[in-house]
Amino acid sequence: MAESTQYSPPKVWTWTKPSGGTFASINRPVAGPTHEKDLPVGRHPLQLYSLGTPNGQKVTIMLEELLALGHAGAEYDAWLIKIGEGDQFGSGFVAVNPNSKIPALLDRSGSAPIRVFESGSILLYLAEKFGAFLPQDIAARTETLNWLFWQMGSAPYLGGGFGHFYAYAPVKIEYAIDRFAMEVKRQLDVLDRRLDESAYLSGDAYTIADIAVFPWYGGLVKGWQYGAAEFLSVEDYKNVGRWADTILARPAVKRGRMVNRTSGDPSEQLRERHDAGDFETKTEDKLAGVRS
Amino acid sequence: MAESTQYSPPKVWTWTKPSGGTFASINRPVAGPTHEKDLPVGRHPLQLYSLGTPNGQKVTIMLEELLALGHAGAEYDAWLIKIGEGDQFGSGFVAVNPNSKIPALLDRSGSAPIRVFESGSILLYLAEKFGAFLPQDIAARTETLNWLFWQMGSAPYLGGGFGHFYAYAPVKIEYAIDRFAMEVKRQLDVLDRRLDESAYLSGDAYTIADIAVFPWYGGLVKGWQYGAAEFLSVEDYKNVGRWADTILARPAVKRGRMVNRTSGDPSEQLRERHDAGDFETKTEDKLAGVRS
Repeated sequence: MAESTQYSPPKVWTWTKPSGGTFASINRPVAGPTHEKDLPVGRHPLQLYSLGTPNGQKVTIMLEELLALGHAGAEYDAWLIKIGEGDQFGSGFVAVNPNSKIPALLDRSGSAPIRVFESGSILLYLAEKFGAFLPQDIAARTETLNWLFWQMGSAPYLGGGFGHFYAYAPVKIEYAIDRFAMEVKRQLDVLDRRLDESAYLSGDAYTIADIAVFPWYGGLVKGWQYGAAEFLSVEDYKNVGRWADTILARPAVKRGRMVNRTSGDPSEQLRERHDAGDFETKTEDKLAGVRS
Repeated sequence: MAESTQYSPPKVWTWTKPSGGTFASINRPVAGPTHEKDLPVGRHPLQLYSLGTPNGQKVTIMLEELLALGHAGAEYDAWLIKIGEGDQFGSGFVAVNPNSKIPALLDRSGSAPIRVFESGSILLYLAEKFGAFLPQDIAARTETLNWLFWQMGSAPYLGGGFGHFYAYAPVKIEYAIDRFAMEVKRQLDVLDRRLDESAYLSGDAYTIADIAVFPWYGGLVKGWQYGAAEFLSVEDYKNVGRWADTILARPAVKRGRMVNRTSGDPSEQLRERHDAGDFETKTEDKLAGVRS
């Protein structure tokens, strides 16, 4: 690390070069819109603007779970936001989420539209709107929110830290990979110990805490993320593995994981979702061996 | 960066060396307690186990604001958790927060104690318990929670990313400093644009969103964090500066910032807080020029 050791930051940071690596083109030191563009609006009360990343999946899983419970008010249009093409910097998107990140939700069911951004905020909003997946008992409710906030504060070390430096950065920096691998393993152990005590994160019930944590840490133990299963010895976290399998078996989770997906098996990709029947069409495609 | 480029991660990550830098001794790849140790319990309904970092300050500011509003039920004992000495790995602390991070709160006011961990979860819990600093109107409530969750998901890039690589890491790694400086400047611009639209983050009212964001980003624009004011050109974010000054003028904020502090001016350090009168003693010390 001889050369790195010699680096001395300037007095004032300036934007002189792209940061490099995957997603470099979408990183900017300024906020706000880059261009004028309205968002499309469909016929359902809830308009979701998203992409099938772990943060996006949290919301589509939640919406599919609500629909599976019979909450017709949770019907939604899921529009694709192509972050690699800068859709999140359009004026319409920035008006819904000034942070220019997916997912963003617009609830048009009331007299005035309500904007909801940050995946954790969206999960809490929907749980309270429909009275589902968030226990009413104060102790169980609090434990659910503890783990929901835990996920929001922890996943940046997994995604923006470990995932970036292990998989996406243009150079492999040993110090950074070590730092974030250690933290992610600690986080997995936190979850593994908790899931040794109870079936789900907040206790006996499946809640928005599980829906928030599953796409990130369930995906990691299933080997879907960053090709890092062996590197992080994810098979050691047996309770997390058992919990992830239980969640993955839920039909709503299977559907939620398909929405706004743009990679993987084409038959598992429902790029936009505007009707419950959209899944059936995909299933028919799959049975017929069609690859769209 | 020649040597870094050549680094190739091993197949399986192992814990072979400390991560280096400030706080290296407290980073571990495993969770759970390292030793048996009960937590102290005082006479008030709320027992806070914390330290005067930005995350700790969120909660002590909130508690002082609640007391200033006349909520006697918000009386609290604030115990010092010395993270440099591993207090957060004691069995009693881990039972309250299995994630071994400050702040952690135990509410003993009901029939059974309720544990609350993650600073965002604690703010929401207290806001709902006392019906304060969280608007009841659904749109304003949602906007408050949007920004509360924004803070939880954003500050890891400031603290665990920028702060670590700029101020604490044993080597200065240009790529990492650039990456996180760019993101922190983007976050400051997100706040600056929002605070150009309204006095506070959720609108006209001071809420838990402001209480969450102030210790991190207010501290940054005030030049308190990482010695990075010039590097990040914080004076450019004029709305954030105006908002930080407004919040800093609140007496409850001044008190909250003193609790569990262990650095800076000794007359501003109230290492533990067990009574409202504790602040007056410090003020008398200050007037008398005593430095304890």
